[in-house]
Amino acid sequence: MKKKLPARTVERLSEYRRTLINSLAEGKEYIFSHELAEMHNNTAVQVRRDIMLIGYSGVQRRGYRIKELIRAIGRVLDDPRGQNVAIVGVGHLGTAILHYLKGKRPSLHLKVLFDISEEKTGRELNGVPCYHIDELERVIQEMRIEIAILTVPMEVAKEMTEALVKAGVRGILNFTTVPLDVPEGVFLEEYDLITSLEKVAYFVR
Amino acid sequence: MKKKLPARTVERLSEYRRTLINSLAEGKEYIFSHELAEMHNNTAVQVRRDIMLIGYSGVQRRGYRIKELIRAIGRVLDDPRGQNVAIVGVGHLGTAILHYLKGKRPSLHLKVLFDISEEKTGRELNGVPCYHIDELERVIQEMRIEIAILTVPMEVAKEMTEALVKAGVRGILNFTTVPLDVPEGVFLEEYDLITSLEKVAYFVR
Repeated sequence: MKKKLPARTVERLSEYRRTLINSLAEGKEYIFSHELAEMHNNTAVQVRRDIMLIGYSGVQRRGYRIKELIRAIGRVLDDPRGQNVAIVGVGHLGTAILHYLKGKRPSLHLKVLFDISEEKTGRELNGVPCYHIDELERVIQEMRIEIAILTVPMEVAKEMTEALVKAGVRGILNFTTVPLDVPEGVFLEEYDLITSLEKVAYFVR
Repeated sequence: MKKKLPARTVERLSEYRRTLINSLAEGKEYIFSHELAEMHNNTAVQVRRDIMLIGYSGVQRRGYRIKELIRAIGRVLDDPRGQNVAIVGVGHLGTAILHYLKGKRPSLHLKVLFDISEEKTGRELNGVPCYHIDELERVIQEMRIEIAILTVPMEVAKEMTEALVKAGVRGILNFTTVPLDVPEGVFLEEYDLITSLEKVAYFVR
């Protein structure tokens, strides 16, 4: 296996790709490193270094060819076989993510949802089947889910995490406010809106 | 005005406080720097340095007194007069944030919501008044809103940002997938779920 890139580099590549996809949609064909840098509040040197790190060297007089750069980033970020994703907890946030993710990245397959509500389970929501939490372990295994997005109420966050790890999930994106413990070999990424908001609040004073 | 702390330090302080509030709720009174470090995947040295940076030195044999440390972080992160916040766009994500924020941080006052839907505007949602986007400029000024959380469809993200800046908002937390341009003096924080998810996807492979 190839050596992993640093986490911050992976984040930046993902952010560049987002910008590149938007630029392409706006009809742009080429982009300079300093343009990408400006859109991401970093330096042209940093952008060029990140792009070199993924082994792309197709820079021309008019800058990077956007289509090719998107493909080059995809070869690093995307698993060609795809990766299966579940959303655990279909409240407001789970629903927002369900709608948001649909069709966004072809290599991330949103396969299944879990909830406890009778109105949601046993049917499809926005084209994705929703199961009762009681079936979590079996369904996660059968569907070979690698990644779980956790959007359950904080009271059950720890319990759900244990169930997900037991079922064989290898990565968890935690949107609850509960800090989670996961065993070695499970990748955990946490996001708390309050932290982003407190950061804004601090810097606008 | 005091010199600002680095952005990453502010993020960590916010994260520590979240953990400390949870620990306090669980009946814990004291905490060691290495315990906090372990819960946040960093080192005890980093934790102690962050806490020293905010001028807190009340560490005892049993560790930091949690209640006092929460207060010390609050003196740095919170504006004693409070800061007013608006949510612009009350779709699934806006609604999730509305419910999530309610009562979470006493110094951040969620004062107003904006939307275009007739069902939502002209009334209170979860106790917060919702106005039509057409009234954005006037209401933002009258209510002295400093911070806007942007959860509108991507097609209108740029236009809304211009309106918010014109109305005098000083910080924007952008949850749309559109990279935004703001003038000097306006603080912009962007969050894209796809980046978090792509990071998890990359590291579980």
